[in-house]
Amino acid sequence: MKRAQRACVITQILTENPNRDFPLGYFAERFGCAKSSISEDLQIVRASFEEAGLGYIETTSGAKGGVRYVPYISKELSVPAITKFGEALAAPERVLGSGFVYTTDLMSDPEFVSMAARLFAKRFAATEADIVVTVETKGIGVAMEAARLLNMPLIVIRREAKVSEGSTISINYFSGSADRIQKMSLSKRAVKPGSRAIIIDDFMRGGGSVKGMQDMLAEFDAKSVGVGVVIAAGQNAQKKIGGYFPIFLYDDNDAECRVRPNPEILGE
Amino acid sequence: MKRAQRACVITQILTENPNRDFPLGYFAERFGCAKSSISEDLQIVRASFEEAGLGYIETTSGAKGGVRYVPYISKELSVPAITKFGEALAAPERVLGSGFVYTTDLMSDPEFVSMAARLFAKRFAATEADIVVTVETKGIGVAMEAARLLNMPLIVIRREAKVSEGSTISINYFSGSADRIQKMSLSKRAVKPGSRAIIIDDFMRGGGSVKGMQDMLAEFDAKSVGVGVVIAAGQNAQKKIGGYFPIFLYDDNDAECRVRPNPEILGE
Repeated sequence: MKRAQRACVITQILTENPNRDFPLGYFAERFGCAKSSISEDLQIVRASFEEAGLGYIETTSGAKGGVRYVPYISKELSVPAITKFGEALAAPERVLGSGFVYTTDLMSDPEFVSMAARLFAKRFAATEADIVVTVETKGIGVAMEAARLLNMPLIVIRREAKVSEGSTISINYFSGSADRIQKMSLSKRAVKPGSRAIIIDDFMRGGGSVKGMQDMLAEFDAKSVGVGVVIAAGQNAQKKIGGYFPIFLYDDNDAECRVRPNPEILGE
Repeated sequence: MKRAQRACVITQILTENPNRDFPLGYFAERFGCAKSSISEDLQIVRASFEEAGLGYIETTSGAKGGVRYVPYISKELSVPAITKFGEALAAPERVLGSGFVYTTDLMSDPEFVSMAARLFAKRFAATEADIVVTVETKGIGVAMEAARLLNMPLIVIRREAKVSEGSTISINYFSGSADRIQKMSLSKRAVKPGSRAIIIDDFMRGGGSVKGMQDMLAEFDAKSVGVGVVIAAGQNAQKKIGGYFPIFLYDDNDAECRVRPNPEILGE
């Protein structure tokens, strides 16, 4: 096989397996060539990933040397996408009353999901987390895609305990959106003690459900090392948690431009 | 930019955007070269995709000629994966009683999700569907990944109507698993009339919830053109639907080998 074709095969395998380490020997054996040849192929691959703006290649040297693809989204790609979807989200017909915005179509849209998940994967790449956690239902798509990009399992906390989960731990928390006490449940088998979690949710108002997820993690001797929300509402309201990363902001007191991109993403 | 690097950039862009058409002019403009050069680059890309076994390249010729990546999974890759996960699923400690199997960890595992979604994407590539449909919760991960691979939106039917969905259509159906009448709801904005849907679910016993999804689609003047389930239980039981595609079979009368891969996938 020629160099160009080897470089393309390596590119596809790395792209399909984000954040997974491949020893150089894996490719050397697969292609029946020397590791030094693979190293030279990787120079082409590295330059190509820089050009595409969707991620970069990390290599480690030495006998156990390997390569991994770290998904990313360049400013050139993220700013037009977040601007376009921000305009879609600001449409007046999306306002449902009671401070809710209709987002179901976007949370199901592969392009929207991919953009949001890449922004989270970029933001949380250095947290040394080992699981992604969300609570059902609407954020599962984005959380699953972020988990895929970060190569971590996704833990979905349920609203109700199900027989197919075996024995569960349940906690109660106050939801500002629902204006009442709600319950969440998680299988006792789901989380290992000491796990480091990235929490992803589609919508946050007071922070009650994120706080609930953090309390749930504490029950498993695990902890949250990053919080990403697609839309954070009511910026002036008291939040139960700090240090979260929103993609869009939603000020329900402002009638003119209800949803807008997080300026930090536009300006970084 | 040299040919090898252009071929790698094209490979990455196609891999990150499955089942999406790119006109040759898109790459010609991006790289500042002639369409004929891109056509030659694509010969390298095509051979590489064949080598990797994860999909193939489809090209259409003529003035509007373009290229798309169709994800796939070769028998060489799918048979070891389905065998490994079949053994994991057959472990006696997964049996929860009442005919349920603990699968939550696998439904959250990126490798399992990717394998299942690729098998569905391969199976349903030719259905000319335009949406993927599931019912919350456990199948959402696989359904989302199948939707991403097929480049279609994912429609998630809810158990309960939520205020953030706006006005909804609800139907009742009989669930054999729960042994009672259950309800499912979907936003009136969610599905366009005439849509062709691929239904994905994590577990099927009598087929009640799949039948419920088909009835729901009928309420929107839409129809099911394919049904994929990760595990189909009780092969001898009367199913409410026909023509479904299971990845694993689960015979809860057979104490020795409870879960096994669908022989059709192993032998095809």
